Amino acid sequence: MTIRYPNGKKYVPKAQAASRNKTDISFSNRGKTLEDELNETNEYYVSNGIAVIHKKPVPIQIVNVKYPARSAAVITEAYFRSPSTTDYNGVWEGKHIDFEAKETKNKTSFPLQNIHEHQVEHMKNVCKQQGIAFLIVKFSTLDRYFIVLYENFAKKWQRMIDGGRKSITLSEMEEISIEIKPGYRPRLDYLHALKENQITVETIERQEKL
Amino acid sequence: MTIRYPNGKKYVPKAQAASRNKTDISFSNRGKTLEDELNETNEYYVSNGIAVIHKKPVPIQIVNVKYPARSAAVITEAYFRSPSTTDYNGVWEGKHIDFEAKETKNKTSFPLQNIHEHQVEHMKNVCKQQGIAFLIVKFSTLDRYFIVLYENFAKKWQRMIDGGRKSITLSEMEEISIEIKPGYRPRLDYLHALKENQITVETIERQEKL
Repeated sequence: MTIRYPNGKKYVPKAQAASRNKTDISFSNRGKTLEDELNETNEYYVSNGIAVIHKKPVPIQIVNVKYPARSAAVITEAYFRSPSTTDYNGVWEGKHIDFEAKETKNKTSFPLQNIHEHQVEHMKNVCKQQGIAFLIVKFSTLDRYFIVLYENFAKKWQRMIDGGRKSITLSEMEEISIEIKPGYRPRLDYLHALKENQITVETIERQEKL
Repeated sequence: MTIRYPNGKKYVPKAQAASRNKTDISFSNRGKTLEDELNETNEYYVSNGIAVIHKKPVPIQIVNVKYPARSAAVITEAYFRSPSTTDYNGVWEGKHIDFEAKETKNKTSFPLQNIHEHQVEHMKNVCKQQGIAFLIVKFSTLDRYFIVLYENFAKKWQRMIDGGRKSITLSEMEEISIEIKPGYRPRLDYLHALKENQITVETIERQEKL
């Protein structure tokens, strides 16, 4: 049975994810979800003392819980809530890191409907506090990954608000973002990509002025 | 019916919490959970542009989800997972803030069993990345609140590891921590308390050496 989050994203239990990767004969990471890839990367960062970045748990509204004798509490009724912040955050060399990760099967553009308005508001607030806020977008059919800093994303978001297109085209994406070349360990070295592009205090100060 | 987390902490649904506060005739915040007080404070911080700090959702292992026709997905089987990080984090004036909040009814000491070992490990890692990590401890029967910076907490934790006492006495707490005087808006101005005590980069650098 396929479990899906309200946004349609497939829910993959750990065990299943593992077994599926075993069937991945090519030894490439195709078929892995962006979440799997980022979790691996973040584990690598923590265990190597590079950064402390974690995915937040999925927000759930708990309605009913049962307490079977001699066993763990069981949640018997709960509902998914839409997140009010980004999915990932943490700290890296004194800087607060805050990002949302999104995957699209679309080959030509990234639909902005993938992002909640309150997540955009959150990223804006993070920038005002001199945190580094961005999106990581995966074009899964193209196997390409992009980091879009909030300051660049905000312009495209505003364009949609102003009645313009509701997506970021692939060519626009190439223009406004930093592409991550996937590797082996870590799988998606987005912090290295940020560093290479001098995404540091200056960026933050620039973002702050938004 | 009383819902409890694995750590025995009572789960209070929003509605119930609200109604309970209405019965709080004294108009003091007695009876409010520390979580309620911190959420109010954090909402105040965000809406006043002071900081962006949020509580992380409770980590849940989802086992089964149903999809009733024409209505939201229902989680029909799930279990509480023990948190691998602290409950609260965010960014304040360029600094990464990371803390765990604990309440005790104990009048004389704070039992360390309230803290998970991996949470201590997490706080240590956050300090190494120059984040500000601490505990907020509420002695609910005394209505007193303390901020314990990781560097001070770590010594008491180590004492336990070394076979010493498994708690921090109230008098030790007064010594090693910053007391928060609860107010009206915000209820628990812990950032002001940190600022007053010059908990800034110097602290971070001190913590880093741990």
